[in-house]
Amino acid sequence: MSGQIDLTEYLFRRLYQLGVRSVHGVPGDYNLTALDYVSIAGLNWVGNASELGAGYAADGYAKIKGLSAVITASGVGELSIINAIAGSYAEMVPVVHIVGTPPIPAQDARLVMHHTLGDGDFRIFADMAAKITCAQASLRDPIMAIAMIDETIQQCILQSRPVYIELPTTLVRLKVSAAELDRPINLLIPENDTHLEEQKASLILEKIYAAKQPFIVVDGLTSRFGFAEEVGELVRATGIATAATPFGKGIINEHLSNFHGVYAANAGDPAFESWVHKCDLVLYFGPLMSDFNTYGFITIPERKRTIAFHRNVIEIGDERLEALRVKSFLRKVLNLIDQTKLHTNIHMELPDPVLQLKTLPSAAPDGNIDQHTFWKRISSFFRTNDVILVESGTSSLGGSEMVLPPNTTFITGAIWLSIGYMLGAAQGVSLALRDASKDGLRPAARTIVFEGDGSFQMTVQSISDIIRNRLDVTIFVINNDGYVIERLVHGMTAEYNDIQPWRYLEAFSFFGAPRDDPAYPIVTRRVENWGQLNDALAEDPVQQGKGLIMVEVIMGREDVPASLRRLVEGAKNRNAGP
Amino acid sequence: MSGQIDLTEYLFRRLYQLGVRSVHGVPGDYNLTALDYVSIAGLNWVGNASELGAGYAADGYAKIKGLSAVITASGVGELSIINAIAGSYAEMVPVVHIVGTPPIPAQDARLVMHHTLGDGDFRIFADMAAKITCAQASLRDPIMAIAMIDETIQQCILQSRPVYIELPTTLVRLKVSAAELDRPINLLIPENDTHLEEQKASLILEKIYAAKQPFIVVDGLTSRFGFAEEVGELVRATGIATAATPFGKGIINEHLSNFHGVYAANAGDPAFESWVHKCDLVLYFGPLMSDFNTYGFITIPERKRTIAFHRNVIEIGDERLEALRVKSFLRKVLNLIDQTKLHTNIHMELPDPVLQLKTLPSAAPDGNIDQHTFWKRISSFFRTNDVILVESGTSSLGGSEMVLPPNTTFITGAIWLSIGYMLGAAQGVSLALRDASKDGLRPAARTIVFEGDGSFQMTVQSISDIIRNRLDVTIFVINNDGYVIERLVHGMTAEYNDIQPWRYLEAFSFFGAPRDDPAYPIVTRRVENWGQLNDALAEDPVQQGKGLIMVEVIMGREDVPASLRRLVEGAKNRNAGP
Repeated sequence: MSGQIDLTEYLFRRLYQLGVRSVHGVPGDYNLTALDYVSIAGLNWVGNASELGAGYAADGYAKIKGLSAVITASGVGELSIINAIAGSYAEMVPVVHIVGTPPIPAQDARLVMHHTLGDGDFRIFADMAAKITCAQASLRDPIMAIAMIDETIQQCILQSRPVYIELPTTLVRLKVSAAELDRPINLLIPENDTHLEEQKASLILEKIYAAKQPFIVVDGLTSRFGFAEEVGELVRATGIATAATPFGKGIINEHLSNFHGVYAANAGDPAFESWVHKCDLVLYFGPLMSDFNTYGFITIPERKRTIAFHRNVIEIGDERLEALRVKSFLRKVLNLIDQTKLHTNIHMELPDPVLQLKTLPSAAPDGNIDQHTFWKRISSFFRTNDVILVESGTSSLGGSEMVLPPNTTFITGAIWLSIGYMLGAAQGVSLALRDASKDGLRPAARTIVFEGDGSFQMTVQSISDIIRNRLDVTIFVINNDGYVIERLVHGMTAEYNDIQPWRYLEAFSFFGAPRDDPAYPIVTRRVENWGQLNDALAEDPVQQGKGLIMVEVIMGREDVPASLRRLVEGAKNRNAGP
Repeated sequence: MSGQIDLTEYLFRRLYQLGVRSVHGVPGDYNLTALDYVSIAGLNWVGNASELGAGYAADGYAKIKGLSAVITASGVGELSIINAIAGSYAEMVPVVHIVGTPPIPAQDARLVMHHTLGDGDFRIFADMAAKITCAQASLRDPIMAIAMIDETIQQCILQSRPVYIELPTTLVRLKVSAAELDRPINLLIPENDTHLEEQKASLILEKIYAAKQPFIVVDGLTSRFGFAEEVGELVRATGIATAATPFGKGIINEHLSNFHGVYAANAGDPAFESWVHKCDLVLYFGPLMSDFNTYGFITIPERKRTIAFHRNVIEIGDERLEALRVKSFLRKVLNLIDQTKLHTNIHMELPDPVLQLKTLPSAAPDGNIDQHTFWKRISSFFRTNDVILVESGTSSLGGSEMVLPPNTTFITGAIWLSIGYMLGAAQGVSLALRDASKDGLRPAARTIVFEGDGSFQMTVQSISDIIRNRLDVTIFVINNDGYVIERLVHGMTAEYNDIQPWRYLEAFSFFGAPRDDPAYPIVTRRVENWGQLNDALAEDPVQQGKGLIMVEVIMGREDVPASLRRLVEGAKNRNAGP
């Protein structure tokens, strides 16, 4: 492009170049003129009912598309979304948060503008944002504006974390050079020193060759750091016994014979635990060692027998290799592997999730749906390309027992665990899948989300956003009458763990779903036993994941996955203190 | 009391002593054990569906009861509520925000706990809270804990602003001295210097006696500063022509012959504006001079003919009297008034809202409901003791045209203007009215809220909270198909100002309202013309305001109160910049 364009068009065209096709957010009077440029830049406006839902959806969208954008008004809007942005920061998701701010002259004059605290301080909210974003741009200087935009977006992608851009109303139409758009934002990662890379790759291979009982643990930052493919190849090429963490589930093809499910130490299979205690080498990829993701710090392998791979750092026992780009390093390891030196054993004593699924006794059609087998049984509903989201709490613990077909995407939390996130995220995921499919980047796919009833209540407006955008989402609402994970932690029968019982299946009608639109089918089913569940799952729209589907699954109020019960014991002890 | 009690019981008993009867909030695993003490201290647990709704409700509760409390979990919970707390700060509402935080040993060890960013920094969210609360207590030191609680609550009330208390799980059951509860928290305001007070009171009276055309403007901080009663008496005693600001509406009895409605300068009645220009003295009580509350800074009186009364400061032209407690000072002024020296004139040229209401032409039953007269006509539905809440946007501008019966309470925004606030606040208001009525502090009363459709969508979960607590609320949903105030500002036909059309009247059923409970009637009506509106208003439960009532009022998509149209022009010009 040549000549001049308006600054806001520049911003949105940059986002388009990097794969964004839809912009989430809520209008407000400091961002309205900016919104005109969404469609000018060829982007689609989502129009969320609330900011928190918009933030969660933007996070979900970025997990599929690699980048997303969300716009709010300043003050009220940005504080309503800040919990979602903090979650994107904690779990490393690249979201560009654009805030429409008051006119620069009003800021400079410290006017008592609405959506401020009235003290003339226009930096308060940006100061808060700086704590939960990896880069910030306060656009003020016309000369610097586009460079600041480019640098901020660059950091968003390179660090895989949210960024914050303040766009005052008076800069929306600033004229800037369109030619800059022809120069791509630099996202190249510097290459490793070839000699060092080879030397250290050989060192690690020697350790693998020498190990009698090696073990691979795949954690969730593996995908954030961009080396999921390399780790997947390593698991296949070496045949080393492999497990996922809760956060890492779904990265490795679960149908590989050397994949043994989620490792949970003494919260899981005892035979697995005692086997792990005998391991002499653990390759730990993309670790995020939160209490939740390590079952209360009990699955973290002993440092002296562990090699941990972060984005640019490898820790070999107590040795720390800095500034080695691990993605490229792993490629080198793969190239150097000498298959003849690997002693790979088949470990019959370790769990075989696929076999466990096949050998589950069949369920009586009139039998109650129980947490113990639901999460395994539902696995037979999944198929290639599905994106499966499990809400924090019962669903995420249950989700770790699912057995996924190859090429599925699994979304769960690791540390932020803000309930209500998954329903919002499902909106973003479904939209990202549609956008990617339109561009021919991936096949159309189902979005399937498992929500607890308490979580569902937090962000129920996301249903409205799904309908407004005619998105295809299948929602399983696990109705067990309250905050069951909290009941386990404390107050099994306490009133404060109760919730208002909603008529969940009425949600779609309330939020204005079309009543007879063949292009957008609506399905609602309440199931109390296995027969009803299977009937619901067999219906055509449910199989196709086309339209909006809700299956309300009734479960016992005190019934939880066994692993959750064990996990919670640890948390209770820590909370109680001395 | 004697002996020892647990720290959390101490905290809740302090809140009880100061009039709190219900605690808002959402459970989370860092606050569960603390929640056990809610009922132990004789308090009622509200159990909100979402944190933002809990925060708005706590704000509403405090506006009626003078103090409220809300509990969240740390990280996810406190960031979800932070927009509401910021609003309480900006508009001066005393809310105690209690955050259940991770165990102290985990904080000290910088463990990677869930609901944190994973960097071992447990101060991030408290640092954010410090920007939007007037006092903070990070309870850690067992010796200091109760003194810190007392001081924080004291500042909450004295400054009329929110405070932040961090309660780690490991301190919940700390044993503290119960005897301290017998010593009341010191809320006494120091007395003014008698001589100074008399001297300055006489000075101001001389100015009033000397004024040929004095004018009183009552703004909303008048009630926050605690001198609403004194100002009301002054208006009656002097007979001086009086107006309210949008935020100050409802403080003065609107049936006084010298009350002339909300003054809007050139956004309102031209005769009023030209009269004000000739005034030689303006007594300006409790000013909050935001763009919104001053119609874009145009109603702020000229400094040289103004006496402005803040909490502890009086500004007489350019002179500033510091450290004079205005409440006591105004009492002195009232005591010293010499009625014979007052020249009070009846100003027939000024608006007479009561007369305007009486002389409104009657509406044709099949006529469309228009913004121009709706807000006046609905006034005949109001009666003494009602609490009326008008959401920011069309409703708040329209609300300034209402004519209120004596002894009503009117709640509107002045500066924060976070849409969705009023529905949450209505839950808190209704609960506060019930709590106060149970204690014999005030008669049972109706809670009536006017919400736009876009605002309603933001915090719709508050309906669930209302039902769960069986609260009496009458909701008028102004359905005009989108963000109409934003349409006026920019993008009259733009898609981004559209919202998803909900089936609003299905809300109560979806959220689980009882279907046949004579003790809790449910009424839903959709009205498109005056006849239907009048029929709905005449129904028994609507008249009594008993149970849960929704009236969906259909209005034109581009129809707005005239004052709103004028206000928006100013905002557009400021946003556009040079």
